[in-house]
Amino acid sequence: MNSPHIVSSFDSDLEAIQAHVVRMAGLVEDAVRKSVRALSDRDVALAKQVREGDRAIDELEELIKVETAQVIALRAPAAIDLRVVLATLAISNNLERCGDYAKNIAKRTPTLVDLPQIRETQGALNRMEAMVREMLSDATDSYIHRDVERATQVIARDVDADEMYNNLFRSLLTHMMEDPRNIAAGMHLHFIAKNIERMGDLATAIAEQTIYLVTGELPDEDRPKSDVTATES
Amino acid sequence: MNSPHIVSSFDSDLEAIQAHVVRMAGLVEDAVRKSVRALSDRDVALAKQVREGDRAIDELEELIKVETAQVIALRAPAAIDLRVVLATLAISNNLERCGDYAKNIAKRTPTLVDLPQIRETQGALNRMEAMVREMLSDATDSYIHRDVERATQVIARDVDADEMYNNLFRSLLTHMMEDPRNIAAGMHLHFIAKNIERMGDLATAIAEQTIYLVTGELPDEDRPKSDVTATES
Repeated sequence: MNSPHIVSSFDSDLEAIQAHVVRMAGLVEDAVRKSVRALSDRDVALAKQVREGDRAIDELEELIKVETAQVIALRAPAAIDLRVVLATLAISNNLERCGDYAKNIAKRTPTLVDLPQIRETQGALNRMEAMVREMLSDATDSYIHRDVERATQVIARDVDADEMYNNLFRSLLTHMMEDPRNIAAGMHLHFIAKNIERMGDLATAIAEQTIYLVTGELPDEDRPKSDVTATES
Repeated sequence: MNSPHIVSSFDSDLEAIQAHVVRMAGLVEDAVRKSVRALSDRDVALAKQVREGDRAIDELEELIKVETAQVIALRAPAAIDLRVVLATLAISNNLERCGDYAKNIAKRTPTLVDLPQIRETQGALNRMEAMVREMLSDATDSYIHRDVERATQVIARDVDADEMYNNLFRSLLTHMMEDPRNIAAGMHLHFIAKNIERMGDLATAIAEQTIYLVTGELPDEDRPKSDVTATES
């Protein structure tokens, strides 16, 4: 069963699937960037574009699911290859969820455009988005190049993303307490900040899957978490 | 390759996996119930129990993933059987995410215990939780019994869950505007309400997977959504 023919068929199937993952990651990073830029520029048309673009991401995930199942069914991959296939499936699911978060952010833009702006927080959101998008990009690269070192760095950076979220949460709270007219916008912006923070978690999950794929072991799940808003006020 | 022996091996493998899904669904429903009860009773110990219990749910999902991959690799199931296996994998992922939401709710309990209580909203949270938990239970049942009728009912009920969330959002907003001391608690409670609403979405996703599994087609994704807080202020 280990003839060179079958092995190379598996490899070329896997390469085709990985090409889909790369394309999907590109679409997701674009959606993330545009969702926060639409908010920053109060650009409702751009937000609509992000919402509508999510379908293409969902369709790619569906395609990856189907092709993954076919590879498993046709090639009956052995332990290590099966691990790669399952990690790929998990990574594409993480990317799809990131796309959903970008869509959720875009959905709130029309509402926020009609509310008083809390200008001081937009810069923080932009910085957080840029950072998380880089984490996503590096996580996908680490997967494609089976680069455990880079994956480990992505995981380490999640603490910074969590810290940025915590600071933003406190800042929003202050603005809302100072002026009740900020409350509605503050609640929506809090949501958006949390969605970006969760994208960081998903980038981390992709990095963890990469490590699993290379080493066969998932990193310790008890790494320190730094979203303290849930345990502090 | 279609000897009765292989077919029945597939069926018994699938039954074993389905038993894991049922067990997982039971743990998730329990976690959902306890997470909101801990909040209602301001019971930090119960919240801790929910947080710690999430590991068992994650482990079951991991087990289902591994056994699913083995079934595909060993039995090379044909089109329809492969669809069942993939739907099962997706359903267990949806249940795992529900467990994460319950854990997220439980994480906020210690914070909320130290903040002034917004009593009027707890009843609404309890009703929403009871409704979504029933949706989850019915969605899992519809999967086990391949019951498209019941799955369709679950999908229809998601509109009610969304409506309950919208009302709660407005109620929280009012309480926060009336008294700034409610702002911190209001932000956390908004999160909890949204997490419960998302569990309703996941129950709906399970019902949709059930319909896919039986009919081979996913229901139309353009069904009306009723979370209007993202598009209205």
